[in-house]
Amino acid sequence: MRKGERTREAILERAVILFNQKGYANASMSDIMEATGLQKGGIYNHFKSKEELAVEAFEYGFQITGKAMLRYIQGRTQPLDRLKGFIEFFIEYGMHPPVMGGCILLNTALEADDTNPVLYERARQAMESWRDLLRRTIRRGIAQGQLRDTLNTEALISLIISTLEGSIMMSKLYNDVTHIEYAVEFLLQHIEHSVNV
Amino acid sequence: MRKGERTREAILERAVILFNQKGYANASMSDIMEATGLQKGGIYNHFKSKEELAVEAFEYGFQITGKAMLRYIQGRTQPLDRLKGFIEFFIEYGMHPPVMGGCILLNTALEADDTNPVLYERARQAMESWRDLLRRTIRRGIAQGQLRDTLNTEALISLIISTLEGSIMMSKLYNDVTHIEYAVEFLLQHIEHSVNV
Repeated sequence: MRKGERTREAILERAVILFNQKGYANASMSDIMEATGLQKGGIYNHFKSKEELAVEAFEYGFQITGKAMLRYIQGRTQPLDRLKGFIEFFIEYGMHPPVMGGCILLNTALEADDTNPVLYERARQAMESWRDLLRRTIRRGIAQGQLRDTLNTEALISLIISTLEGSIMMSKLYNDVTHIEYAVEFLLQHIEHSVNV
Repeated sequence: MRKGERTREAILERAVILFNQKGYANASMSDIMEATGLQKGGIYNHFKSKEELAVEAFEYGFQITGKAMLRYIQGRTQPLDRLKGFIEFFIEYGMHPPVMGGCILLNTALEADDTNPVLYERARQAMESWRDLLRRTIRRGIAQGQLRDTLNTEALISLIISTLEGSIMMSKLYNDVTHIEYAVEFLLQHIEHSVNV
């Protein structure tokens, strides 16, 4: 990696934590300068504007998160096993989020919805990638006869993500991972009811 | 209501929407002046600082939300019926939040957790009031024999709030209330499994 690329990545590494903890609008250029140890010019060498940095930092953070998720489920080739892996990952994810400050997708979605159309669109795309992963997995599970074909795939996807993301909010609010554990336990039970026996 | 009180309430009415949509840190004094149509001095006559206004606006917004909730469930005296009412309320709540900009508790909790200890504490207290309402209702349901006494009350409370709050995030992200409807349907089914038959 060239020096320029290393600097760029170092900026992203620090900026993404700052944005995830403080919010995109609330983190100022001086916060970013302080976090990266660079002058304004050094940052603008790599990113045209704070807005561009925010979008790139989100992409960078979501990529790290996606990699952690894929590492967690990579050995699981059976669809049912993979689906359960996606859900169980969130206990680890809530305790040690790859980007400090909680779930980057949850935080970005809720900040951007009323204020930042570009970030809002990126958050939707990121959410689509999770929904696609779940959709493909559930459809394979149905095709292979592991899951009942009467299952409402879209409802299950929605329920899984809503419950897990809500439980991350609760676990942050109370500083208590038990909320995620309850969510995971319930979802695994719920999926058991959709398994072909 | 005296004129001073009316002005105070008018400030809160507008500020709470602004904060709920833009975030507390991101909404500036000039945004607040623009939203209320008042000069800085007119606002400081009623609130010592932006921080005080933010806390009062949250309390005001959560009170409105609480009243909407209580109106929705007030006719329901049976605990099981009341519990279902709490859950069903969220469809209405997600479609027409009493404070524009989504769930004020979810937004405040996620903004404040890493940045604003005073608001974070208020968000926890607000969440406690919902948890208490659910706890009292579930316990009455168990005491009256409507709900099974093997029920894990704390787990059920956590699941209800996580699932509903997560579904509000999803419904805002996709501008589609279906996500809340899925969450409500799942929770009502889940509670049916805990009903004594």
